[in-house]
Amino acid sequence: MRLSRYFLPVLKETPAEAQIVSHRYMLRAGMIKQSAAGIYSWLPLGYKVLQKIEKIVHEEQQKAGHLPMLMPTIQSADLWRESGRYDDYGEEMLRIKDRHDRDMLFTPTAEELITDIFRSHVTSYKDMPLTMYQIQWKFRDERRPRFGVMRGREFYMKDGYNFDLTKEDALHAYNRHLVSYLRTYERMGLQAIPMRADSGPIGGDDTHEFLVLADTGESEVFYDSAVTDLTFGDRDIDYDNVEQCAGVMEEFTNLYARTDETHDEALFNAIPEERRKTARGIEVGQIFYFGTKYSEAMNAVVQGPDGKQVPVHMGSHGIGVSRLLGAIIEASHDDKGIIWPEGVTPFHVGIVNLKQGDEEADGACEALYKSLTALGLEPLYDDRNERAGGKFATMDLIGLPWRITVGPRGLKNGVVELTSRRTGESVEVSPEEAVKKVAAIYAVH
Amino acid sequence: MRLSRYFLPVLKETPAEAQIVSHRYMLRAGMIKQSAAGIYSWLPLGYKVLQKIEKIVHEEQQKAGHLPMLMPTIQSADLWRESGRYDDYGEEMLRIKDRHDRDMLFTPTAEELITDIFRSHVTSYKDMPLTMYQIQWKFRDERRPRFGVMRGREFYMKDGYNFDLTKEDALHAYNRHLVSYLRTYERMGLQAIPMRADSGPIGGDDTHEFLVLADTGESEVFYDSAVTDLTFGDRDIDYDNVEQCAGVMEEFTNLYARTDETHDEALFNAIPEERRKTARGIEVGQIFYFGTKYSEAMNAVVQGPDGKQVPVHMGSHGIGVSRLLGAIIEASHDDKGIIWPEGVTPFHVGIVNLKQGDEEADGACEALYKSLTALGLEPLYDDRNERAGGKFATMDLIGLPWRITVGPRGLKNGVVELTSRRTGESVEVSPEEAVKKVAAIYAVH
Repeated sequence: MRLSRYFLPVLKETPAEAQIVSHRYMLRAGMIKQSAAGIYSWLPLGYKVLQKIEKIVHEEQQKAGHLPMLMPTIQSADLWRESGRYDDYGEEMLRIKDRHDRDMLFTPTAEELITDIFRSHVTSYKDMPLTMYQIQWKFRDERRPRFGVMRGREFYMKDGYNFDLTKEDALHAYNRHLVSYLRTYERMGLQAIPMRADSGPIGGDDTHEFLVLADTGESEVFYDSAVTDLTFGDRDIDYDNVEQCAGVMEEFTNLYARTDETHDEALFNAIPEERRKTARGIEVGQIFYFGTKYSEAMNAVVQGPDGKQVPVHMGSHGIGVSRLLGAIIEASHDDKGIIWPEGVTPFHVGIVNLKQGDEEADGACEALYKSLTALGLEPLYDDRNERAGGKFATMDLIGLPWRITVGPRGLKNGVVELTSRRTGESVEVSPEEAVKKVAAIYAVH
Repeated sequence: MRLSRYFLPVLKETPAEAQIVSHRYMLRAGMIKQSAAGIYSWLPLGYKVLQKIEKIVHEEQQKAGHLPMLMPTIQSADLWRESGRYDDYGEEMLRIKDRHDRDMLFTPTAEELITDIFRSHVTSYKDMPLTMYQIQWKFRDERRPRFGVMRGREFYMKDGYNFDLTKEDALHAYNRHLVSYLRTYERMGLQAIPMRADSGPIGGDDTHEFLVLADTGESEVFYDSAVTDLTFGDRDIDYDNVEQCAGVMEEFTNLYARTDETHDEALFNAIPEERRKTARGIEVGQIFYFGTKYSEAMNAVVQGPDGKQVPVHMGSHGIGVSRLLGAIIEASHDDKGIIWPEGVTPFHVGIVNLKQGDEEADGACEALYKSLTALGLEPLYDDRNERAGGKFATMDLIGLPWRITVGPRGLKNGVVELTSRRTGESVEVSPEEAVKKVAAIYAVH
């Protein structure tokens, strides 16, 4: 993309209403624009990161064998009356009357509707296990929306639902989700720690939240520092392998890590003192096993192998897709702006032309742009007629992890500068070598 | 995908509520499920086609230089009061009160919000031309929703908006959209004819609708039969080339083609009688130039090259993404089911195992599945323990354009059967040759 053709309305001033760094930088970098309290438009740069995150979530869900589908945002109140949650949900539910005066709502979650789909079509244990998921806009009418996309009213969420014949099968689904979530967050450059949590209005006994440690987190968390040494890495996983998934679950949850809702002082004090940590965390996902809570209320039963009708065991599993942009920025920034992890960066590399209009500099930038594009990479080329300082400040603010700086002086010696946003370190290399290095970073050939 | 692990709830009976063939087949093929009047869930097969269509729209929009972004579904009524459309829109607008009793609405279109984004950030002609678009869920509270996704209440739409300094520039944007739409529809296997239309509540003088001829279309159309001979094909387009885009516009709109709203009997009768056609058409898109209607009402002005403040010229451009599934099926089916064009088929090829459990047949199917997958193709392998007739009926119903049939008898002679869904013709070839032929059809290597 050439910046002269892009829509990147960066702000010089820090917007007064933004209390936390991710909100400030998302506004300043022209990623979002508020349209009403807690409701945002995603401008091209913000939308691009949202799509990258969405793609990673889709890929990892499908690797785990989960089927993508999509449910509507507007639902009838009837199903919610059947489960009993229509009255329970309170003012956070956006309630709507349609033109025929029927009670509708903007869905905050979809246990009822997916259970209705299941019970309409599945009658036998032979059609299970089954896990379906969607990535869809949700609405939660927060009394006091704040922190930008971190606590908005309209938000983008992945919500998945598993249907299994037995508790044992459903717990495998639970573990499978835990494994897939670990992979998902790591691909985004995040460490998200599974912590024992409270189930809230979803219900059920078993639930883990995934938390990213950050000073601005809404939850207080207590953990054994050894959990932060765990990484999933690139190990091979067979999602059908019950023991392997259970093993990962065990490895990532047997050390103490809890939110304040489930914190147990006695257990915490049993950890060696130097490993006892308290911090704040941002919730970026949650998995639940809630057994037959919805299947019994809504009569989602199947015929088992013995011919008897049994309610199915269920769980649900969520990732806050739009919220993740905020969480990633909270975990990865400095005082100049955002520092995107390579896995989610909107553009792979920035090209800064120090002297727009200079024939040689323009030519070298164009050649770099073409070479990088031909490799399937997306460069952002700042081809505006601006001074170098402004171009650098924009690149630092929007946080592309790599930058190639091109100027007449360097070109005389046959070099350009390749700079890491994270470390600030630069190397002078030939344009061809710069392309090779960027290609190697993103593992494209 | 293995069918044993998929969620494909095909129906044997034709649902009574479905009046047109696309609605019947989408329900019977397990693509959608109604959750409320005019509101549907997209089951995995339906969602997969929706994603294919969405991807084509994104690609063609971006080739034309249009920037993707995303606006929220829930908007404040304030902007709509500013343009004067809050009262104009009538009962089709879904009006909502939030918990603080503020007037909100589920957006049916987004001229107001995009104009607000533009005026907040753009102050100079130097930042134009600018075209942004989104693909987002919309709501239109139809009094009598019907025909499945063809006339639903919650629907998925691409809506794009151009901002230009002059009428001349804005008309180039209009032409550019016409060209990109022609390409978009052709990639989906559709002939969509641009017809002079009425602008309705969007407003403006210049507008064309794109119509697919089908007996079930909601509009009566009148055209010179020569328009159906026009194809865009794979010609090279430079979207910055004003003359080239204007030339395509001229070529595709100078023959008579109008909806009943703008039909002119005298002009129509001037066409040679044998080329005078009336038919019915399904509207799958519309482009508008409406000048300064919104920019004047909402004070979206920029500084021109002469230093004077001028309101910008605008247009908007829509494609009915969810409706396209219905339109494609109306245009491409037979009495056994859907016939997907290759460009949008949910799976590239079906594999039918005539004797599940037979070692040789199972092995050959697995090998085919692996070879096709390795090429980046998505086969749907019917690995269920069902009789052949049921498997064929399912494949015909869901409409995959190609099918490979594998059975012990053929394998004895080293052959499988490759069948075209459209013509019904089969060839007996080796499994390797079948893979090669399918790869050639989809141009993968």
